[in-house]
Amino acid sequence: MDFSEKTIKKDMIYSGKIIEVNLQTVVLPNGRKSKREVVNHPGGVAILAYKDSDTVFMVEQFRKPIERNILEIPAGKIEKDEDIKTCGMRELEEEIGYKARKFEYIGKVVTSPGFCDEYIYIFKAEDLYKGRDDIGDEDEFINIKEVKIGEIKDMIKNGEIIDAKTICAFMMI
Amino acid sequence: MDFSEKTIKKDMIYSGKIIEVNLQTVVLPNGRKSKREVVNHPGGVAILAYKDSDTVFMVEQFRKPIERNILEIPAGKIEKDEDIKTCGMRELEEEIGYKARKFEYIGKVVTSPGFCDEYIYIFKAEDLYKGRDDIGDEDEFINIKEVKIGEIKDMIKNGEIIDAKTICAFMMI
Repeated sequence: MDFSEKTIKKDMIYSGKIIEVNLQTVVLPNGRKSKREVVNHPGGVAILAYKDSDTVFMVEQFRKPIERNILEIPAGKIEKDEDIKTCGMRELEEEIGYKARKFEYIGKVVTSPGFCDEYIYIFKAEDLYKGRDDIGDEDEFINIKEVKIGEIKDMIKNGEIIDAKTICAFMMI
Repeated sequence: MDFSEKTIKKDMIYSGKIIEVNLQTVVLPNGRKSKREVVNHPGGVAILAYKDSDTVFMVEQFRKPIERNILEIPAGKIEKDEDIKTCGMRELEEEIGYKARKFEYIGKVVTSPGFCDEYIYIFKAEDLYKGRDDIGDEDEFINIKEVKIGEIKDMIKNGEIIDAKTICAFMMI
């Protein structure tokens, strides 16, 4: 069934460094009009980085919107015109200081499709070797953690891991 | 390690029907200043609704930000001052027309913590019985689907399911 909504008016509300916000007037399948608040985001990558066959690297970092530290797999935003694989390899090295001999795309997720167009492209990195030493970028502070894959499901169930892209990545392997 | 970022200035950019957007100036752990674009969202619920022990109900709906239909578990926004369990039971009935005799909280996820504070609270609904017939709210158009739990992992791997909260829910059971 075609439930698509045609945009008849689009007001730009904010164009920032990372996100854009617009308010769209749409025509619904029943002919009525409604409003949609839409956040445009450049999208991101996330990487399941295997230290060995049963251990992955994760990063703990402070996330301002929720005012707390959380545990995530290495991830980051796609820069303008950047290829997703290039972005994945860049973020892997920036966040944990490793490069990978095997770097494979395993799937994508949409994080919050009700109001935002952000996709996260997920990669699996294996056969890692040391890259740069200065991890983090200029406004990013990170603790690297090693986590056993066998413990992931319990960490999700007990709330130690609450980051959606991270949880999704483990459903793709 | 304390990597928290103190807000020294907060400019409200947009206060809409669902989201608010603000731009915060923060002090980083190294004393430097940076900007954070933050989207505030009321949060939502999502429900794993069991038709029987090996089948769940899902909903297909058009999502304007990504301009396509996607398959999700029943879900919706938390209304002002609404209890999350009440919200979960309301959305279950609004989206698929069922009530549940067993309704259990199984965990929460944060959908996009880099820029947004949205949490999704996930419930498991069992022992369902028919509620109202008029599904969907006034600007929501939904196809109900029945999906075998045994097929979920393949549907995630082959891209038929890309919705993050939906994928996360199946990691909590």
